[in-house]
Amino acid sequence: MALLTRITGPRDLDGLTPEQLDRLAAEIRTFLVDEVSKTGGHLGPNLGVVELTIALHRVFESPKDKVLFDTGHQSYVHKLLTGRQDFTKLKMKGGLSGYPSRAESEHDVIENSHASTVLGWADGLAKANEVLKKEDHHVVAVIGDGALTGGMAWEALNNIAVAKDRPLVIVVNDNERSYAPTIGGLANHLATLRTTDGYERFLARGKDLLERTPVVGKPLYGTLHGAKKGLKDFIAPQGMFEDLGLKYVGPIDGHDIEALESALQRAKRFGGPVIVHCLTEKGRGYQPALADEADRFHAVGKIHPDTGLPIASSGVDWTSVFGEEMVKLGKEREDIVAITAAMLQPVGLDRFAKAFPDRVYDVGIAEQHGAVSAAGLATGGLHPVFAVYATFLNRAFDQVLMDVALHKCGVTFVLDRAGVTGTDGASHNGMWDMSILQCVPTLRIAAPRDADQVRAQLREAVEVDDAPTVVRFSKGAVGPAVKAVGKVGGMDVLRRPDEGTADVLLVSVGALAPMCLEIADLLDKQGITTTVVDPRWVKPVDEALPPLAEQHRVVVTVEDNSRAGGVGSAVAQALRDEGVDVPLRDFGIPPRFLDHASRKEVMAEIGLTAPDIARQVTGLVAKLDGRLEDAPAEAARD
Amino acid sequence: MALLTRITGPRDLDGLTPEQLDRLAAEIRTFLVDEVSKTGGHLGPNLGVVELTIALHRVFESPKDKVLFDTGHQSYVHKLLTGRQDFTKLKMKGGLSGYPSRAESEHDVIENSHASTVLGWADGLAKANEVLKKEDHHVVAVIGDGALTGGMAWEALNNIAVAKDRPLVIVVNDNERSYAPTIGGLANHLATLRTTDGYERFLARGKDLLERTPVVGKPLYGTLHGAKKGLKDFIAPQGMFEDLGLKYVGPIDGHDIEALESALQRAKRFGGPVIVHCLTEKGRGYQPALADEADRFHAVGKIHPDTGLPIASSGVDWTSVFGEEMVKLGKEREDIVAITAAMLQPVGLDRFAKAFPDRVYDVGIAEQHGAVSAAGLATGGLHPVFAVYATFLNRAFDQVLMDVALHKCGVTFVLDRAGVTGTDGASHNGMWDMSILQCVPTLRIAAPRDADQVRAQLREAVEVDDAPTVVRFSKGAVGPAVKAVGKVGGMDVLRRPDEGTADVLLVSVGALAPMCLEIADLLDKQGITTTVVDPRWVKPVDEALPPLAEQHRVVVTVEDNSRAGGVGSAVAQALRDEGVDVPLRDFGIPPRFLDHASRKEVMAEIGLTAPDIARQVTGLVAKLDGRLEDAPAEAARD
Repeated sequence: MALLTRITGPRDLDGLTPEQLDRLAAEIRTFLVDEVSKTGGHLGPNLGVVELTIALHRVFESPKDKVLFDTGHQSYVHKLLTGRQDFTKLKMKGGLSGYPSRAESEHDVIENSHASTVLGWADGLAKANEVLKKEDHHVVAVIGDGALTGGMAWEALNNIAVAKDRPLVIVVNDNERSYAPTIGGLANHLATLRTTDGYERFLARGKDLLERTPVVGKPLYGTLHGAKKGLKDFIAPQGMFEDLGLKYVGPIDGHDIEALESALQRAKRFGGPVIVHCLTEKGRGYQPALADEADRFHAVGKIHPDTGLPIASSGVDWTSVFGEEMVKLGKEREDIVAITAAMLQPVGLDRFAKAFPDRVYDVGIAEQHGAVSAAGLATGGLHPVFAVYATFLNRAFDQVLMDVALHKCGVTFVLDRAGVTGTDGASHNGMWDMSILQCVPTLRIAAPRDADQVRAQLREAVEVDDAPTVVRFSKGAVGPAVKAVGKVGGMDVLRRPDEGTADVLLVSVGALAPMCLEIADLLDKQGITTTVVDPRWVKPVDEALPPLAEQHRVVVTVEDNSRAGGVGSAVAQALRDEGVDVPLRDFGIPPRFLDHASRKEVMAEIGLTAPDIARQVTGLVAKLDGRLEDAPAEAARD
Repeated sequence: MALLTRITGPRDLDGLTPEQLDRLAAEIRTFLVDEVSKTGGHLGPNLGVVELTIALHRVFESPKDKVLFDTGHQSYVHKLLTGRQDFTKLKMKGGLSGYPSRAESEHDVIENSHASTVLGWADGLAKANEVLKKEDHHVVAVIGDGALTGGMAWEALNNIAVAKDRPLVIVVNDNERSYAPTIGGLANHLATLRTTDGYERFLARGKDLLERTPVVGKPLYGTLHGAKKGLKDFIAPQGMFEDLGLKYVGPIDGHDIEALESALQRAKRFGGPVIVHCLTEKGRGYQPALADEADRFHAVGKIHPDTGLPIASSGVDWTSVFGEEMVKLGKEREDIVAITAAMLQPVGLDRFAKAFPDRVYDVGIAEQHGAVSAAGLATGGLHPVFAVYATFLNRAFDQVLMDVALHKCGVTFVLDRAGVTGTDGASHNGMWDMSILQCVPTLRIAAPRDADQVRAQLREAVEVDDAPTVVRFSKGAVGPAVKAVGKVGGMDVLRRPDEGTADVLLVSVGALAPMCLEIADLLDKQGITTTVVDPRWVKPVDEALPPLAEQHRVVVTVEDNSRAGGVGSAVAQALRDEGVDVPLRDFGIPPRFLDHASRKEVMAEIGLTAPDIARQVTGLVAKLDGRLEDAPAEAARD
């Protein structure tokens, strides 16, 4: 790492020779494989952008110029070149974030890890430069071909294209894939994009040049993204970007630093919006990644650096329980189809896709389309199951409300990675869904507490044919089964006093059931008796809940979701509406963004632990007993 | 109306001669001008699609074939041809909806009036036909060029394009405008789209044909949408749609029924996804509309049919109060810029645009881009004000949360048409914003109660430079000023007892202040005293509210927003967090979709009236007094 360790900032790149730059790239790849295999992280995407990132920082002057990364998981090389080379605690509490982070560096601008945003950011920053007459400030946005399938990217391109003299450089990092290979008409188009050199000049030198440039051993020309077309088609002037009015430069070999610099320099000087189309290879230089056709080591846990094999298996996870049940449902009901937004494998639909290839739709990074096309599928007579990370459903709120719910469509949304996910930081926590969905009329939300409930509630969900349903569950390993000891209305009773009525009614939401049973144990030791119920369906509030609440002195709700407008608020409202004025305390995630750390560390930090909650409930009961006059209301501390 | 009255369904069109069809079109135009001038409605868009709708219903067999309209305000002709010719109560309670309505007719499929959804619906319906092997069922989607600027349309096109043998007809109704002229690279591209006939055949017959086809007196060729280009450029093979892999047919004169039918028949037979590009004229055949360059009578109130002049002016409205203050702010602060999503005039930014043409951005029907580019503008050193209808902000929830709030950007969102708007039906009511925004950390919401407060709170909002702010107000005429009689914390006291403490604390939100004062009057007559406060900023809950609540026996909140997760829920949570267990009742909009009717009728139907609320509060106080044991909790009836 003789060269890498000498790079303390982008300007340290200036004096390096071409040969040194190639060596630096090699050092960075070694560093990434060594370090990320220890911590886990987004390995494949970063191995693909080593040369590109070096070239960007040689051509542009960050932080005066804004170098923006879409999604941000490909920013590890950028971190290495901007003074951040301690990766030992990557994504861990106190360590580097897995995405750009404005708290870490003045070179980071966008820390949102939701895809397809970068062109909108770039448009805004370029407009601001124009208004404020900062002619010598450049904006360069790096976006993957996968992220271009998102509607936001289109909206931005449509706006960027009209301002012919507002400088903005868009680098399309085209590796033919997002998580999985990129789908759609755009992918096909990218595969046939012409060079800007025109037919004649292309014939004269393009083909030769391309054939001489090796990419993973194959001639670049042949690898131009699987375009199974002849030369004539390939260079046909079909520039979709140019149709929109955008200057197009490319395609460029994204692993040739000199070619990249030359293209970026041209783009920087152009004086208007320009697209630089770079061809890169996800996982480049790391054989285990290249051999993995499914996702090229998009994101890995801890792995053996030589083999790429995972070091520890994490047991059965929520995702695979869902995925297996979907295959069973698919066999039983021919009308069930599945939708994913470019994440077939991460949401567990790969098995369903193998069993029913004609009944699964990968819509690209396009949650809006996932939801609205589901409304069409349902209206057409099928029952679609759209499996998506909880945090990404935010993108489709309007479609869930106005297309699915308003039109009474039977669509099941399966929200994976709901609740605190931890290490990916603020934008990956699935802590919003149970708040924003409360106001969607007719929509029902299931929060299964264990694997059995995932299976059972998914089956209940797909039975609903006139309204949307949501089944939300956590990230990672699913805990042991939590047995019900009884039933009140539709709610499972998980625990109740041997006789008589209890002091506290504890309403547990989803995966927090074991924690709620622990809270009850702790309260027991304080002489406070507890009924623990799992409503299973948390929206609407079970009709049996208010009368049950009335038999208790205190109601406590515990959920893995924002406190603002969550299940606790809905339960409180249901009690008010029934005139049940029993005091209620609602525990959940405080209304703020959460820094990256393990789930356990985050939960401790926000007070979502059994001892914290038990202590507060004890204080409240003591206050009601008159034993303590003014118990501090700690729930409000955030 | 000899012909029109004989049309009871689409099949009655089959036997008509070309001459009769032209007469029918003329009758429909007369009908539309006569009827819509009496009721108000979307006149211009419907005048533009008369021939297109006739042709669609002759070529396709609705309801077996699905004829889908994007946004839906251009469906009046469709209604006339599918058995709905009583327009006397258009948009009124019990009358026809202003959009398609599945309750009205089996010929209506999509009743969502949010734009850019139709291609996603069509994709889903076409997929369902494929899975269910309904080969003889066709799907045809009509979308305006304006709606194509929305990201959803792009996501759909990207998906539709790859299924080469899944039939789907997309009709682009290209009138160069949405509300205002369509913006962006796409609009420029549409202007240069080639015919499918190819260079040679085009030369042989295309130009002649086009020049012989008159559109409003001008040769069609010349009007090909302002393309100030020569023939060569015009027919250059720049088909963006074909780049995506979509078959393209066009451009077609959208007022030539025969040409339309021929193109649609070709498209229907094609057997894959195909775009039919139709050129239409908004407001066609109605001189006052054609003369109105601003919006071609997109939506009108009651007008004189001959002159197009409005019959009654509605006084000063909320929108213009905002619009005027923006001009003042623009003069005072050069860093303030404005954003609209294709609705410059409806949101009141037209004056600002005139005063500061370089500081206003029309992003197209692209709320996501409006919000994310605002984050970029703010990060670049400006203060953007994004004015948008409240219901359309749903489209940008993720961007408000993840781009603006997470990045601590000073962006002001001005939500017009918040609360019950009434006549445009379920999807135009602005009843979601104060629910979904509650969980957005750091975001502040202002709900001004009168014109003075709009001005004052807008100024407070643009002072915030590290978080998003929202200023939300109603549709229509703003009421008289409501004076404060005092202050508690940041809250305005609107009324309080002359001495001592009151029984009820009434928390009024925004424009409901006069109603809340009326409730207090009614309670007075029952011997119940009331404090009325307007918190002005409803998120976060004012710190002075819980201690003030503690001095009362009952807290009542009244808001023009969904009860689920709204301001009432937030106030209740704040009281719980402070250990204030005073009974609270929250009044707002029940969690269901609201049918079209006047705002007053809707408010009465959902019990949001002073007498209704006063009666319920009286019952609650009586119950607390022990005068009445079990007052029914009417708030829960929905």
